[in-house]
Amino acid sequence: MKPLSPTDQLFLWLEKRQQPMHVGGLQLFSFPEDAPDDYVARLAAQLRTQTVVTPPFNQRLSYRLGQPVWVEDEHLDLEHHFRFEALPTPGRIRELLSFVSAEHSHLMDRERPLWEFHLIEGLKNRQFAVYTKVHHSLVDGVSAMRMAQRMLSADPAQRGMPPIWALPTRAPRAGGEGGPSLWRSVGQLLGESGKQLGTVPTVARELLKTINDARKDPAYRSIFHAPRSILNQKVTGSRRFAAQSYGLQRIRAVCQASGTTVNDVVMAMCASALRTYLMNQDALPQQPLIAMVPVSLRKDDSSEGNQVGVILANLHTDIADPGERLRKIHQGIREAKDRYANMSSGEIINYTALTLAPAAFHLLTGMAPKWQTFNVVISNVPGPTEDGYWNGAKLEGMYPVSIAMDRLALNMTLTSYRDQVEFGLIGCRRTLPSLQRMLDYLDEGLAELEAAAGC
Amino acid sequence: MKPLSPTDQLFLWLEKRQQPMHVGGLQLFSFPEDAPDDYVARLAAQLRTQTVVTPPFNQRLSYRLGQPVWVEDEHLDLEHHFRFEALPTPGRIRELLSFVSAEHSHLMDRERPLWEFHLIEGLKNRQFAVYTKVHHSLVDGVSAMRMAQRMLSADPAQRGMPPIWALPTRAPRAGGEGGPSLWRSVGQLLGESGKQLGTVPTVARELLKTINDARKDPAYRSIFHAPRSILNQKVTGSRRFAAQSYGLQRIRAVCQASGTTVNDVVMAMCASALRTYLMNQDALPQQPLIAMVPVSLRKDDSSEGNQVGVILANLHTDIADPGERLRKIHQGIREAKDRYANMSSGEIINYTALTLAPAAFHLLTGMAPKWQTFNVVISNVPGPTEDGYWNGAKLEGMYPVSIAMDRLALNMTLTSYRDQVEFGLIGCRRTLPSLQRMLDYLDEGLAELEAAAGC
Repeated sequence: MKPLSPTDQLFLWLEKRQQPMHVGGLQLFSFPEDAPDDYVARLAAQLRTQTVVTPPFNQRLSYRLGQPVWVEDEHLDLEHHFRFEALPTPGRIRELLSFVSAEHSHLMDRERPLWEFHLIEGLKNRQFAVYTKVHHSLVDGVSAMRMAQRMLSADPAQRGMPPIWALPTRAPRAGGEGGPSLWRSVGQLLGESGKQLGTVPTVARELLKTINDARKDPAYRSIFHAPRSILNQKVTGSRRFAAQSYGLQRIRAVCQASGTTVNDVVMAMCASALRTYLMNQDALPQQPLIAMVPVSLRKDDSSEGNQVGVILANLHTDIADPGERLRKIHQGIREAKDRYANMSSGEIINYTALTLAPAAFHLLTGMAPKWQTFNVVISNVPGPTEDGYWNGAKLEGMYPVSIAMDRLALNMTLTSYRDQVEFGLIGCRRTLPSLQRMLDYLDEGLAELEAAAGC
Repeated sequence: MKPLSPTDQLFLWLEKRQQPMHVGGLQLFSFPEDAPDDYVARLAAQLRTQTVVTPPFNQRLSYRLGQPVWVEDEHLDLEHHFRFEALPTPGRIRELLSFVSAEHSHLMDRERPLWEFHLIEGLKNRQFAVYTKVHHSLVDGVSAMRMAQRMLSADPAQRGMPPIWALPTRAPRAGGEGGPSLWRSVGQLLGESGKQLGTVPTVARELLKTINDARKDPAYRSIFHAPRSILNQKVTGSRRFAAQSYGLQRIRAVCQASGTTVNDVVMAMCASALRTYLMNQDALPQQPLIAMVPVSLRKDDSSEGNQVGVILANLHTDIADPGERLRKIHQGIREAKDRYANMSSGEIINYTALTLAPAAFHLLTGMAPKWQTFNVVISNVPGPTEDGYWNGAKLEGMYPVSIAMDRLALNMTLTSYRDQVEFGLIGCRRTLPSLQRMLDYLDEGLAELEAAAGC
């Protein structure tokens, strides 16, 4: 029995019918070379025999004296968690994305361990997919990604590799591996204020106080400048997931020609895609959109204290020229990083929490404050650089599936794998119609940047 | 814009994460004889072009002055409602039932019209399936079944037949076609009491008063005699669906040899299956289980006022001898029907509502009263007697998928089609483990009855 941390409780409170709070990952594999045509069905049969479930996948939510705790599920029903499924013909990526869109819209059963593992057959070209879904109160996005990587091996000949739910238990997680979780800093701030986070009203009151103080403080006044946009409406319960890989070589060529970083170019691609998407909806705000970007801020080589901050990146979506936009984005991000270099650990937590506080306040109370610190979340999670294999099946791509929330109807999370940048976009299907078009706009955005940089 | 009836509002109130309030139907079709192998994919492509959606399928929930109303969804996204999906190998009925179990566990998005139509390929033997899911506030189980039948034709040569969401609009439904809805009588009783059903507390208070009066009234005291059982625990959010066809000839032979009706024999099959299932769990109550059975009570030929009542059928699960059990069930149902013959319309509504009131009270308040009127719902909905076709595809079987609720963890709904009786069992997956075994127990129950009747 282990009590939930305040941050993990937050994810339970925030969850509602229109706003599930699970994160996911989509992995695309190719069959091992010598695999028979019914390879995926055989794999499914093998996986069904993996009935010993290790923490945290055997933990279900319970309550002790009104407080949420994790307890072992003594009646774990693997058939509920491990699902063998199929895509309809013609089994393209399009059908896979439709599948994930629908599944990611469904709440999970809170009486059971909060995860699902979907093994998906029916893809063309001897490929199959794995879609993993885990509640954010159980693991954060980065930890989920790390777990998915732990399932893999660099050795294509290795066999007998367990699925994610049967991996050997690791050294204690100590309440989260400290990845750049969107909310941990809010929890930390409130935790540090010496108050117990017992109830939603307490948390909301603390947040409001923190925000109001900050809005009068000249040092922080600049963070409340995001415009209103359709990205910041209430969400409905159904999601659209869109994902695609973009060549890292192309992105690197733009960096070199423009003197920017991979992250800058990726942000500029997002800026361009958002600009085109909103212009086509006749909904581009006059003021530039602001992206919230979690960043890792390790100052020295100590592995302790993987310090996390957020950058409020101005996407300069008001600028038509792609090269000019990239330069401004680059400059803004560098300035934000420089600012962090002079901040103490406590100041970083404070700044991060202030940035997130308006969103958290809205999510907890349903009240929409006039001020807003960002329009969209763009998160870049580092991934493996070498080929990964799972029982001989080669990982061809991996795409993060994150969370859309009220007033944050779009989340763009990306990761890297080998020579690819893998984008996963999740959004509210009604607030943001035809979201999948952003995949093309990202590509066009990269092409524009190439042209501007003379690549 | 059309306000929801009090009964339809009830289904919205009762719905919660662990207790979705939609009904469904599973239809199994065989390919037309001349169909190509990719028949289902072609059908899906055709269906995607059916973008004109007729009432009630274009109606979404909205609120006016705090009251729920149906309004037309002006941004209807057919891709959300019509889903083309596939079963994993080997594509047996087992995989189909797993699929429906998972889908039926998912809440629907309340911002959209509350229905889904799943076209399912990947079944063996040139078959495919349609699983339709509609919220109970939009249609009741019987109306849903009738709609599904309206989609069919007796003519295998007919083509160009629309799917259920594009059927021509019929004469006004006038708030429900009056099928044997489980809850309509409760709504009627409270409506007739002259009170507006504004809020849950009002309804609950009225129910409690009604129940307490009845428990002191000798005429009604006998209805509060159902034992406690595992069927009457709280449910969790995930469901198991099990379905199978049983030959009507076998059932008729038992009727003829024993002087009973088809309905009696079906009830005796259910009794036997429940007895075996509970005995295997070491959970058979000493007292007999009581089933709530909705019945149609039309007294004359007027098509007006399709009067609905409920029978509390004693299943005599305490009796080991199958023949004896059938006789007692037969006798009990005949007595219940005779009782109705002497009742006025108002008395029938009153009796029905009293029977349902304890369950409704519990569902609305979460409080578990000590008294209970029944343990399980067994519903028999008449179906077509002739072959049905949909654009040349022959309907091979149709199975109702109903609702499991707190304290009513199992629902057994059956229908008839041609020479088959089609059982659909829906239950809470955790409260009632391995529910699918009841399909075998139903079959064994029928075999026992055949042996007892000397068939």
